[in-house]
Amino acid sequence: MNQLLTDKDDVVAGFFRPEIRSMQGYVPGEQPQGSTFVKLNTNENPYPPAPEVITAIAQAAGMGLQKYPDPLGTAFRNRAAAVLGVPPDWILCGNGSDDILTIVTRALVGPADRLRLPYPSYILYRTLAQLQGAQSEEVRFREDFSLAGEFSQSDPRLKLVFLPNPNSPSGTVIEPDEILQLADRLTCPLLVDEAYADFAECNCIDLVRRNPQIMVSRTLSKSYALAGLRFGFLIAQPEMIQFFRKVKDSYNCDALSIAGATAAISQQDWLRENRRKISFTRARMTERLRKLGFSVETSHANFVWCTHGSRPVQPMYEQLKAQRVLVRYMNYPGWGDGLRISVGDDEQSDSCLAVLESIL
Amino acid sequence: MNQLLTDKDDVVAGFFRPEIRSMQGYVPGEQPQGSTFVKLNTNENPYPPAPEVITAIAQAAGMGLQKYPDPLGTAFRNRAAAVLGVPPDWILCGNGSDDILTIVTRALVGPADRLRLPYPSYILYRTLAQLQGAQSEEVRFREDFSLAGEFSQSDPRLKLVFLPNPNSPSGTVIEPDEILQLADRLTCPLLVDEAYADFAECNCIDLVRRNPQIMVSRTLSKSYALAGLRFGFLIAQPEMIQFFRKVKDSYNCDALSIAGATAAISQQDWLRENRRKISFTRARMTERLRKLGFSVETSHANFVWCTHGSRPVQPMYEQLKAQRVLVRYMNYPGWGDGLRISVGDDEQSDSCLAVLESIL
Repeated sequence: MNQLLTDKDDVVAGFFRPEIRSMQGYVPGEQPQGSTFVKLNTNENPYPPAPEVITAIAQAAGMGLQKYPDPLGTAFRNRAAAVLGVPPDWILCGNGSDDILTIVTRALVGPADRLRLPYPSYILYRTLAQLQGAQSEEVRFREDFSLAGEFSQSDPRLKLVFLPNPNSPSGTVIEPDEILQLADRLTCPLLVDEAYADFAECNCIDLVRRNPQIMVSRTLSKSYALAGLRFGFLIAQPEMIQFFRKVKDSYNCDALSIAGATAAISQQDWLRENRRKISFTRARMTERLRKLGFSVETSHANFVWCTHGSRPVQPMYEQLKAQRVLVRYMNYPGWGDGLRISVGDDEQSDSCLAVLESIL
Repeated sequence: MNQLLTDKDDVVAGFFRPEIRSMQGYVPGEQPQGSTFVKLNTNENPYPPAPEVITAIAQAAGMGLQKYPDPLGTAFRNRAAAVLGVPPDWILCGNGSDDILTIVTRALVGPADRLRLPYPSYILYRTLAQLQGAQSEEVRFREDFSLAGEFSQSDPRLKLVFLPNPNSPSGTVIEPDEILQLADRLTCPLLVDEAYADFAECNCIDLVRRNPQIMVSRTLSKSYALAGLRFGFLIAQPEMIQFFRKVKDSYNCDALSIAGATAAISQQDWLRENRRKISFTRARMTERLRKLGFSVETSHANFVWCTHGSRPVQPMYEQLKAQRVLVRYMNYPGWGDGLRISVGDDEQSDSCLAVLESIL
């Protein structure tokens, strides 16, 4: 029986591309459904989305879901264009910004091509390269999370560079001026992944006009509190966008997410207030964590990255989890480990700090 | 200026993979937003989804969208498993069945591999092969839309076979027994695309148990009247499913579509009633179209495929459109053209027939 099972596994595995067989697959943060955890592990927003979003979704649901949605999400693109100061045809809508990253990688990176990313950063970039049968080239950040010179080296095999800004797990930023210089040195497109940019003081949208190699991706999951809705978008010059349209699924965004996202991006006052509260809690958390002996990077995102000079952090993750507080333990081979703690509301952040204070 | 523009276009095009540069891109049927067309061009359901679906979506929206959705859509898988008689871990959820087709192709088909599809059928299969840099091998149906012997020829370069059943544009079916024999002859997986199977008298779900090469994809867009929601799923043996999970975006289905789809598949009485009405209108349309001199394939889907022995059909499409009736004009090089007319409600179908009767 065991032998039979193994044989079947082998037969099935043999159907798949070698890249797929050998890869690990990206493992997202734990998502306990409907549980009572204080959830500070996947950088969700602790506050609900603007009420107008829920109204818009209910309206769209009532208007009949039997028709296909607008393949280009025009309502969203028009509103986002007005808010962000770019023309609507510079915007591509995606089913979450992961969909955008997938589309961009599939369009630009073929087998035997190279894709560059900084290390440590978002592990998904490496997975996307593997899915294409491409090489990923991970360039280590300097100790202070600034970019090493190697990151801007041009290479004819290089087809795409990912730069998360602010970076995860560090929460650090590279200044737009430096990013513009980086793009000028590269001979391939550069995607600045701005999933967390609404929590930072700078962003790269203006750079897209200045160099067609520069693209910016955004998500509504974090700053707009809509992780459950799956909506992200790309800002790029229209000559680039037209190629990405060929690669995306025809109806990649559903009618409800287009309606919800359009309402969300219209509520800029809600966004400002949300950002204010999160920045405040972030400052408070950072200070208290440092008092506990953690090294905490100054964060420009809705999470903080903590390492500890004298105590191992993995047991802290376990003890937090036992106390129903979920944070993200990250271990980057060759770099080190740490805890990435999302900025919740004050109460959630206090729960986490109370457990850590009882341990340390 | 013109020269400058051309130069920039060339530079931008040079960033993309050759496959992407040269491909046409799949063009979906026209989706006029908020217009007054009688829309019989993309096989949408004329009836609204079950009211329980709208309630479930409103509830999910009110429960907070700030959290990530369940990456595996467990609530849906449990309900679908009970309804369809397969275990939950035999089901993979997708953002529409196009997402399922994309995941399966990316997992199985690499550059220089081959993907087989019947012709004429769903053009997207060819696009998916192109995106992978793979060869697509289109095997012509026989005149009566039965499968040519060539379709079951085994070939070591062949990594995936798509078989839409019922087929579009013809609405014809291949019997499950023949599909089982086909899979037995092939040495690669066979995906039976059952987007329209709820309108037919047979389906291939039972075959998935009998041969791990056989997979079945389904969508909620047609029979469940949820094209706007984007939800589809794959049924395959769990040894296959585990590989596809590595390829999909982590959160490919949003919280609202999971909730809506779970409610929809629970309403089997609604489905039966909907199917009854559509079958009735389909029979009525077929009869009247034949009286007008059309050759109409006996349809097992929610559309009919019409050709005309003595009159060109493209002008009919134009005249229908001028009268605000949208049908799909399809022209398949080497095969011929025709009109694919979705089965609407009786009133929509009467509007279409009235225009055709005034022309012919």
